[in-house]
Amino acid sequence: MIFSMSNFNGSKSSGSEIEQLVQLLSRLPGLGPRSARRAVLHLIKRKDGLMIPLSGALQRAVEAVVECTTCGNIDTISPCSICCDPRRMQNSMLIIVEDVGDLWALERATIGPVRYHVLGGVLSPLDGIGPQDLTIDALIRRADEFGEIVIALNATVEGQTTAYFITDRLNGMDIKITRLAHGIPVGGELDFLDEGTLSQALKARTSL
Amino acid sequence: MIFSMSNFNGSKSSGSEIEQLVQLLSRLPGLGPRSARRAVLHLIKRKDGLMIPLSGALQRAVEAVVECTTCGNIDTISPCSICCDPRRMQNSMLIIVEDVGDLWALERATIGPVRYHVLGGVLSPLDGIGPQDLTIDALIRRADEFGEIVIALNATVEGQTTAYFITDRLNGMDIKITRLAHGIPVGGELDFLDEGTLSQALKARTSL
Repeated sequence: MIFSMSNFNGSKSSGSEIEQLVQLLSRLPGLGPRSARRAVLHLIKRKDGLMIPLSGALQRAVEAVVECTTCGNIDTISPCSICCDPRRMQNSMLIIVEDVGDLWALERATIGPVRYHVLGGVLSPLDGIGPQDLTIDALIRRADEFGEIVIALNATVEGQTTAYFITDRLNGMDIKITRLAHGIPVGGELDFLDEGTLSQALKARTSL
Repeated sequence: MIFSMSNFNGSKSSGSEIEQLVQLLSRLPGLGPRSARRAVLHLIKRKDGLMIPLSGALQRAVEAVVECTTCGNIDTISPCSICCDPRRMQNSMLIIVEDVGDLWALERATIGPVRYHVLGGVLSPLDGIGPQDLTIDALIRRADEFGEIVIALNATVEGQTTAYFITDRLNGMDIKITRLAHGIPVGGELDFLDEGTLSQALKARTSL
């Protein structure tokens, strides 16, 4: 039990709704027991302005949110609004991402009318995650709709292994396969970058 | 707008439930737009295990939570379970705290069957917070029930000003007024403490 408001009277009813809310909120990433308690107090103090709207939004999201059966994106319709978008359908570029958070990040970068395929993870034998746990088969089935597939997986060992595995599976199909460029982040300082990034950035230098 | 999932089709309907949830969650203390997005993805991935229980808990808390008319604590009954506890009623100690978070912190410390009075803030002329904005009048009205009042306000300028103001108002009543001890936090290292704390800790030294 994270906290108890009833150390002395032993009544289970007192504040158990509050306690339950703290326990559930503390399971969100970035919130521990202490910040969950602060969040609950913040909510209760702003009952009309924040707590009731949040309760409603959560309820509506529970009812509305579905996973797109085509690409794995999260939306209120399936196929999702990205898969249904006529402008994106005219474009033959597909971007493979690990999860929906990466899809959102690319959308925020306003990269153009592209479509996505959410893998749902990366290959990780140590965690028991093999090809059958990802949406690789679904990717292969829809791949021939596209002229270019960009593999936008994280630059980790697992991400790169997964990229090679997918490239291998797509081999023989008439599709251009690319990956995101390595280099210096925009606004990044050389001094803080690792040697691998600097070395890749130098190799891939472009003329001014 | 914090993020848009529909840069290209212009449809407002797509994912607006998700967007709204992100915006509301990002208003919680300790969560910004980025961590709110992570939290929403986390929730959606754990729909049955976390999102639906959280939605229910929030709904129940909205309906159940009330402020105790006696002490200002937050509970599902008023007077709250602390004010109603017979063991606490036999004890004549009242602890004055700034807000409910401080009350919870003292309850976690299992300090004994005491009662509390939540001020709802501290005096802060710069922020326009005067005595009428706090529950000082209510405190004075109930003060003669108690034999000892412990002022447990933060050791800030505002906290100490408020403590002096309350002491002044309670003057003339037959009540022992005390404050929390200053000293070295348990587990604290001398090297990291400020001079004020060290000097107070030396003045208030106890014999071994």
